[in-house]
Amino acid sequence: MNQMTRIDPALETRMANAIRALAMDAVEAAKSGHPGAPMGMADVATVLFNRFMRVDPTDHQWPDRDRFVMSAGHGSMLVYAINHLLGYDDMDMDQLRNFRQMGARTAGHPEYGHAKGIETTTGPLGQGITTAVGMALAERMANARWGDDLADHWTYVIAGDGCLMEGISHEAIDLAGHLKLGRLVLFWDDNGITIDGGTDLSTSTDQKARFAAAGWHVQAVDGHDRDAVAAAIEAARADDRPSMIACKTVIGFGAPNKQGSHDVHGAPLGAEEIAAARKALNWPYDPFTLPEDVMTAWGAIAQRGAQARADWTTRLEGSAHRAAFLEAQNRPDAGALRNAIAAHCARIASERPSVATRKASEMALEVVNATLPNTVGGSADLTGSNNTRSKGQQSVTPGDYTGSYIHYGIREHAMAAVMNGIALHGGFVPYGGTFLAFADYSRGAIRLGALMGVPVIHVMTHDSIGLGEDGPTHQPVEHLAALRAIPNLMVFRPADAVETAEAWEIALTAPTTPSVLCLSRQNLPTVRIEDDAENRSRRGAYVLRSTPVERDVTLIASGSEVEIALAAADLLRADRINAAVVSAPCFELFATQDRTYRQGVLCDAPRIGVEAAIRQGWDQFLRPDDGFVGMTGFGASAPAPQLYAHFGITAEKVAELAKSLIEGGK
Amino acid sequence: MNQMTRIDPALETRMANAIRALAMDAVEAAKSGHPGAPMGMADVATVLFNRFMRVDPTDHQWPDRDRFVMSAGHGSMLVYAINHLLGYDDMDMDQLRNFRQMGARTAGHPEYGHAKGIETTTGPLGQGITTAVGMALAERMANARWGDDLADHWTYVIAGDGCLMEGISHEAIDLAGHLKLGRLVLFWDDNGITIDGGTDLSTSTDQKARFAAAGWHVQAVDGHDRDAVAAAIEAARADDRPSMIACKTVIGFGAPNKQGSHDVHGAPLGAEEIAAARKALNWPYDPFTLPEDVMTAWGAIAQRGAQARADWTTRLEGSAHRAAFLEAQNRPDAGALRNAIAAHCARIASERPSVATRKASEMALEVVNATLPNTVGGSADLTGSNNTRSKGQQSVTPGDYTGSYIHYGIREHAMAAVMNGIALHGGFVPYGGTFLAFADYSRGAIRLGALMGVPVIHVMTHDSIGLGEDGPTHQPVEHLAALRAIPNLMVFRPADAVETAEAWEIALTAPTTPSVLCLSRQNLPTVRIEDDAENRSRRGAYVLRSTPVERDVTLIASGSEVEIALAAADLLRADRINAAVVSAPCFELFATQDRTYRQGVLCDAPRIGVEAAIRQGWDQFLRPDDGFVGMTGFGASAPAPQLYAHFGITAEKVAELAKSLIEGGK
Repeated sequence: MNQMTRIDPALETRMANAIRALAMDAVEAAKSGHPGAPMGMADVATVLFNRFMRVDPTDHQWPDRDRFVMSAGHGSMLVYAINHLLGYDDMDMDQLRNFRQMGARTAGHPEYGHAKGIETTTGPLGQGITTAVGMALAERMANARWGDDLADHWTYVIAGDGCLMEGISHEAIDLAGHLKLGRLVLFWDDNGITIDGGTDLSTSTDQKARFAAAGWHVQAVDGHDRDAVAAAIEAARADDRPSMIACKTVIGFGAPNKQGSHDVHGAPLGAEEIAAARKALNWPYDPFTLPEDVMTAWGAIAQRGAQARADWTTRLEGSAHRAAFLEAQNRPDAGALRNAIAAHCARIASERPSVATRKASEMALEVVNATLPNTVGGSADLTGSNNTRSKGQQSVTPGDYTGSYIHYGIREHAMAAVMNGIALHGGFVPYGGTFLAFADYSRGAIRLGALMGVPVIHVMTHDSIGLGEDGPTHQPVEHLAALRAIPNLMVFRPADAVETAEAWEIALTAPTTPSVLCLSRQNLPTVRIEDDAENRSRRGAYVLRSTPVERDVTLIASGSEVEIALAAADLLRADRINAAVVSAPCFELFATQDRTYRQGVLCDAPRIGVEAAIRQGWDQFLRPDDGFVGMTGFGASAPAPQLYAHFGITAEKVAELAKSLIEGGK
Repeated sequence: MNQMTRIDPALETRMANAIRALAMDAVEAAKSGHPGAPMGMADVATVLFNRFMRVDPTDHQWPDRDRFVMSAGHGSMLVYAINHLLGYDDMDMDQLRNFRQMGARTAGHPEYGHAKGIETTTGPLGQGITTAVGMALAERMANARWGDDLADHWTYVIAGDGCLMEGISHEAIDLAGHLKLGRLVLFWDDNGITIDGGTDLSTSTDQKARFAAAGWHVQAVDGHDRDAVAAAIEAARADDRPSMIACKTVIGFGAPNKQGSHDVHGAPLGAEEIAAARKALNWPYDPFTLPEDVMTAWGAIAQRGAQARADWTTRLEGSAHRAAFLEAQNRPDAGALRNAIAAHCARIASERPSVATRKASEMALEVVNATLPNTVGGSADLTGSNNTRSKGQQSVTPGDYTGSYIHYGIREHAMAAVMNGIALHGGFVPYGGTFLAFADYSRGAIRLGALMGVPVIHVMTHDSIGLGEDGPTHQPVEHLAALRAIPNLMVFRPADAVETAEAWEIALTAPTTPSVLCLSRQNLPTVRIEDDAENRSRRGAYVLRSTPVERDVTLIASGSEVEIALAAADLLRADRINAAVVSAPCFELFATQDRTYRQGVLCDAPRIGVEAAIRQGWDQFLRPDDGFVGMTGFGASAPAPQLYAHFGITAEKVAELAKSLIEGGK
């Protein structure tokens, strides 16, 4: 055994039964929940924690702790039971008694941030596996930088059949196998049961062969034979590939009449079956009551973890990497970044390049990556199109994790979830690129990052019909609205190279909010030509061009359409109409400004929104009688300038509409 | 050989080179596009069409034609070149000359409906494979109903490395292997190249082992050895499993200096390289010019297809299944459905059950499935929660396709894409269920269905915080807005069992618009208690409760919040305030009503929107000073009634807000 040499089998059985009892009692009390998975996987989890896991409940953020991810998040009671047994101070028995109740830390699915020892939010199936891949990758990247003394831990995942059926699991498994993430161990809860019935209703895949095909080390064990499970974990740790251990289990193990059937998957057992289970498990204690020997045994795990953490702290104090390591645990240095970005913006304002904002993003990244040591870039196989790689960024390759650029492959969903995992692990600030239209593929993970408050940065180029010939499948029209709809997500659509750099700065320093940077394929002029030191994008929207006298109309635009709004203002000026132009790079930030500021930006004159996308989401700017120039349906395949003309997103149309609104208002 | 006994190798080489020449010339003319895949797969495609495919360009909708899906949609010129060579009358040489130009049928990616012979829209990777699974399944289901005489065709797919890296491919492959879809043959364009460089940058998967693990028949050939390709297709057809043929190819085959590198993937070759390729391929013809012998040879394929179609027509005329078969090709009989739904609604209005709309949906399905013979239901492993199965619906099982209920497994994305494929194939009307929150997983395919105009029905239950304890990962708050943002998609959120049945009727009879039915987990009272024969949901929104005198306020709600709006109106009446209640089950349909109708519904009095979701998307109903009672962020885990109280979505809050708006307006 790796961590302990002598195991008392009878005691370890009782340790596992404690999980089972707490799970069935809590689900019963809640009158809802999933007892099947915690009861089925109690033996595996007990072996894992009792013989291997290193966590310290008194310092749940200890960077070198092992990570445990319950990808089958509906089995949340497994996590809560274990965390109670380990003695986390925020997981007392009342939390378990109030499973799934208002205000309890014990939500229906494990929610990151609700309680210590929950490494990530799970529930939407497949997310946990993929987030864990990010954690296991971050561990190796940390190890490559700071050595075994500081980064030498494991990531363990429990996944069910559902996790393995979801498409994202394929992306995760492929990527982990390719990158040889040997510190990742996945337990497949092979219980043969899904909600609709037996897994044979919908799958015939040989999961072991599937994982082997992706380059994994694969074993199969009886998930109730604890020594076999332990031996498999030993073998998994000895292999340099990621490991999958197929654990044949009985769902709801211990409930004598219901175990092994889908009745036990997602419903309380009922008083009668619980009584029968208590008898079958030889567990004579009252609900939510634990015997002393079991508490002591679980407490020993925590003590072992505390000792490991103390040893690690000693190593850290003596380490040459101490300062760099500690710096990497925090969010980026906002002061240093401000200075670098301000100097960059001043240069842009002076040189006034005409570049696509995806190119401007690359220019900003040269500054960012030179300033911040722990950014980690990447792309879903669109590096040259997303412009996500700065000079000198080396690729992370199988077995060599010193680089800071990840080839995520054509796996948008995994990229987003892996970035969540890297950020949750700590030590790195991840960003990754794809086309904006493919936010549809990664949306599940983007949302989960927003829900958890994990500040990853999604770089999404080719952000409108402006991408041209690739046509409507690739042209976002509703994606801005759909992303703006997600709570706690900042969606940036910068107008030029200055705003692009500003967006990077805001995104990198946001403590608990992920960001999406929507960037153009096509060239755009520099519109922020005054040399001002202020990050004006922080306001979300601001007056880019004011009027000498009271304005007649306000033109509000984002991204590539700011140029059009400015040209429309020029046209209107020729007709002695005073049009102010507002640039709106981030709706979410504008919504947080006070009423006075917002009114000062928007004023009372007629307003026109200009964005090569649908109107939905513009209601904070536009009143019913205001105008909008944008899209009402899908795009088309043609060169970009022709598309803008075809869909009527032009300075002339904006000017025309402005005149008719002013006329109508008189 | 299956279709032809004698092949002239030299001529077949020229047939393949015709594809190559057209691809490189069209991309060059467009100054953008992807020559690599069409040139690399020209041999495989030529063998497939020359020796196997049965299509009739004079009747592109012939139901028993073989289907060809270019899942690697960026290689669209392969499709356009072939369709030109086959003589489709809408694909003349000018279309190829205008590749990727405004108004041409030859869009950057193949767009369903833009030209004959394009079976589905592809471009977002992995969609083509999965849609093809739906087609292959529909073929077997048709065969099970109407026999070999009428349904006896094949579905062929070309997929690239990108398609196989996407998660959705896993879902597709698993499902196809499980269901033993032996009529599906997938060619993997194994060229070792992606946009970022060699595939070894990001994947190490043994694709052949992976497909074998999922129950596929697997072969590997040199993709430029045409006889080997033909033999592999023969063997694939002889096996009763779906087949994957790994075709080792050289990307951009024929371009002597660029082939085999990622330079040839997605950019024009340039005049010099094209000249060199013409020489290397011994293709001395001018751009967009084809020699007679090649045209004749491709024309023979079309003639063979026309003969096959004629033979089939003869069989159809003599078939006992003729009437049923022809009926199945059309959209459902609107008249019969109207009568059945009207009778059902009258019954509901009289019995006034208090049921969840997911249960109401099951009740409606009992009527629908009894009335329409060709509906095909299913669920992503949530049958009992989605209530998608009506009495007597038998499961489709591996090898037995007589059933009408599909266990899609925990594969939301595949379910949506497979439904697109079933609908595109024809003969069936597919619907499938999952939780609304998981629309995030299936969004890529939902959007593609909307873009294509394929009228599938997505049943999405557990549509708000009303699902309760499962918590924020499972509680939609932004999903309604995000789905309403997709063009050409109807999002229904019915308030009771009557509106639920009406939504089904509208969705089933929509010719070119997919629908999402958002349904409650929790019970709701019947609110449409008058026995009216009109489908009022067709208006999108309507006055559910009017006021005896001029209204003081209008309460607009959808789904489960209509009950709250009605209760608020009762509270207000006690204070002598006249509140009209508008039920708004479908925003998209309301937007298509004329201004007079809409104004008549909404009136000038203050308005309050009530929906347990974010406000975004409500701007067609609400003016800046109007009110909204709903969500502003993520939900929480607790019993539903507590959540409604916690988030302030109650009749009391609505009534309070109404009073303050009326007061403020005075």
